[in-house]
Amino acid sequence: MMERKEALKKLEEARKRGEVDEDILSILEILNSSSHFYTTSSCSGRIVIMQLPEIGDKKNAVFLGKWHHEVGIEDILNSISNYSEGYLFMLVQSSIIHIVADSLQSAREIMRIALESGFKYTSIKVIKNNGILVEILSAENLHIPLGERGELKIGYGEIEFFTKMANLMLRRIKQKLKIFEEKIKSSPLFSS
Amino acid sequence: MMERKEALKKLEEARKRGEVDEDILSILEILNSSSHFYTTSSCSGRIVIMQLPEIGDKKNAVFLGKWHHEVGIEDILNSISNYSEGYLFMLVQSSIIHIVADSLQSAREIMRIALESGFKYTSIKVIKNNGILVEILSAENLHIPLGERGELKIGYGEIEFFTKMANLMLRRIKQKLKIFEEKIKSSPLFSS
Repeated sequence: MMERKEALKKLEEARKRGEVDEDILSILEILNSSSHFYTTSSCSGRIVIMQLPEIGDKKNAVFLGKWHHEVGIEDILNSISNYSEGYLFMLVQSSIIHIVADSLQSAREIMRIALESGFKYTSIKVIKNNGILVEILSAENLHIPLGERGELKIGYGEIEFFTKMANLMLRRIKQKLKIFEEKIKSSPLFSS
Repeated sequence: MMERKEALKKLEEARKRGEVDEDILSILEILNSSSHFYTTSSCSGRIVIMQLPEIGDKKNAVFLGKWHHEVGIEDILNSISNYSEGYLFMLVQSSIIHIVADSLQSAREIMRIALESGFKYTSIKVIKNNGILVEILSAENLHIPLGERGELKIGYGEIEFFTKMANLMLRRIKQKLKIFEEKIKSSPLFSS
């Protein structure tokens, strides 16, 4: 588990490189304003086109497309055109925030706010003496196979439909992030 | 959180009604043989065809088909033929075991075995004075939209492909369950 100082330094460097989504930056700032918490990684939610040599082999996954905002059908078709081998998937992934709490009490409180904001898959991933790692995560996701052995298995109409559904899911994901931001803003945990 | 006595009584009743999958029953028996643990719910992994009035409205979901074993294309087509309104999804869901541990130490030990068996989404869901609820879960899943407003949006070839992929995922899920069973069998935690 990363220490607070190191985590905040890495966040600042990533922010300077423009790698932290605007959608989530203000949330991370609020969370890190409390001495009881610090964030170690995050994503505001995304749509992904991913090529996978074997099912489960995430280490060798190739991201053909990755968007933190809604996409057009042409974005999806462009990224699919680079598909060459193994399996092809379209994913929609929930926003995710990894946050270290300094006590079980603090962990419980941030989990309660996350659950109330609709992040129903929120849980504790690791408990150590120097902190408790909480994962804030929602249930919104899609996991759609599009091809195997380098061959696209899905027609144009289906890709259009999946793109529409992916955008719908991503909007719901971003809405939950806004609700969470409002709740932590008005929480006494972060009144600094 | 359910108490041990109540949880084991419910499991026994469900078993008598034939509602506990054979794949997972022997695992539950091993886990419940230790006084440090008891299971409160479980599923060995499944393929689902689900109709949903609105995205996120799981309370009103209708299961048109549900299988804990591999399926044929005709099973899928039969269940899809009952699709009438809202959204339609094909899901593959990981095996899941909810287990209450009597201490943080016990929780950590069962999490370690689950993670080593490939259940990478294992986490702590609730911490209370009377127990710690651990969720044993793997990353294998599919979440595929098939229709909207009562209209099927996917062609026959695509349904064939998704059925094949669903069976492939389910096989991987059941394999992990076997690995987990072997590991708990040889663990000193359950040597009773």
